[in-house]
Amino acid sequence: MAEEPRRRGAARTDELLQVTLDLAAEVGYAGLSIEAVARRAGVGKHTIYRRWPTMAALLLDALSRAWTTDLGYHDTGDVRADLREQFLRSAPALAAPPIGPVYRAVIAEAQADEGLRATLHDRFLRTVEESTLARITRAQEAGELVGGVDLTFPAEVLCGTLYYRYLLSNRVADETTVDALLNMFMAAYGRR
Amino acid sequence: MAEEPRRRGAARTDELLQVTLDLAAEVGYAGLSIEAVARRAGVGKHTIYRRWPTMAALLLDALSRAWTTDLGYHDTGDVRADLREQFLRSAPALAAPPIGPVYRAVIAEAQADEGLRATLHDRFLRTVEESTLARITRAQEAGELVGGVDLTFPAEVLCGTLYYRYLLSNRVADETTVDALLNMFMAAYGRR
Repeated sequence: MAEEPRRRGAARTDELLQVTLDLAAEVGYAGLSIEAVARRAGVGKHTIYRRWPTMAALLLDALSRAWTTDLGYHDTGDVRADLREQFLRSAPALAAPPIGPVYRAVIAEAQADEGLRATLHDRFLRTVEESTLARITRAQEAGELVGGVDLTFPAEVLCGTLYYRYLLSNRVADETTVDALLNMFMAAYGRR
Repeated sequence: MAEEPRRRGAARTDELLQVTLDLAAEVGYAGLSIEAVARRAGVGKHTIYRRWPTMAALLLDALSRAWTTDLGYHDTGDVRADLREQFLRSAPALAAPPIGPVYRAVIAEAQADEGLRATLHDRFLRTVEESTLARITRAQEAGELVGGVDLTFPAEVLCGTLYYRYLLSNRVADETTVDALLNMFMAAYGRR
């Protein structure tokens, strides 16, 4: 009985986050507002403000949910293959419309806004890094990677390297790029 | 005799690029214009437009010159130490005022402008990647790194990883970070 309100709350959160993504795809980042999300979702705007202090925070939670739902790592027991598959699936999803331009707009705004850079990491990229770390730690425990090495920073390198191409050039994260990145990762940490 | 005009031309280019950086530090990216650089340098604006099609191109060449002049790699024969020293010198130089906010503003603008992303890479980051590749290739030739491996992408990983922290969080590229990055690089390519 006590779980019912919680379940309804989670469903409402999911719906709000989905409405946010749908609206972002339609109107772009500049056209987004908490008022517009509230109107579309049929809730009062204070319902949203209670949980999300800014539009950027709401959008980043929506991106994080999409990432967790659709872009998680598989675990086939072959860490290189699983990382490769996820990178080749997630890189285009984050770069292409409708998500791409919205995500780029948040990143652009964050360059002049230290608080937004913190939100960007706390609400979205931390999720990405932690799920990568979880996958490679499982591989380490399974003996696919060398033991006794802290993989926290390597997880960041895996996540971060492809952003460099995405944000600072027009080079894409294609198979050649992903294979070169995984060559370096496995040369460093693959069990010999 | 024939070299004199060329030397004067190079000196004028250096002066224009320095004026550009000085002015950027004073007025910020939003306040910069080719007209203002021309006025400060005492040249006609067409003199500038002949070589730089946009203000961003001029600014990125100015950053590239500053990087080449002040932020090159040393070669002490110890590749790990030389990379470490350069990363710890260049990361704060690109992040701190006066360069930091101007550089971030270009990167922000580039998020909505594919042409500017190409210019950003062609006029600045290509220089950074190529000088890193040159340093680690010398180390490979000297036997410090394993042979028979193409180091082009590893050079990109070295350059790009620290950008992820810089652009997408408030975490800094401190000694711990740089050491973790070099641990991964040397684990992958150091001669065993």
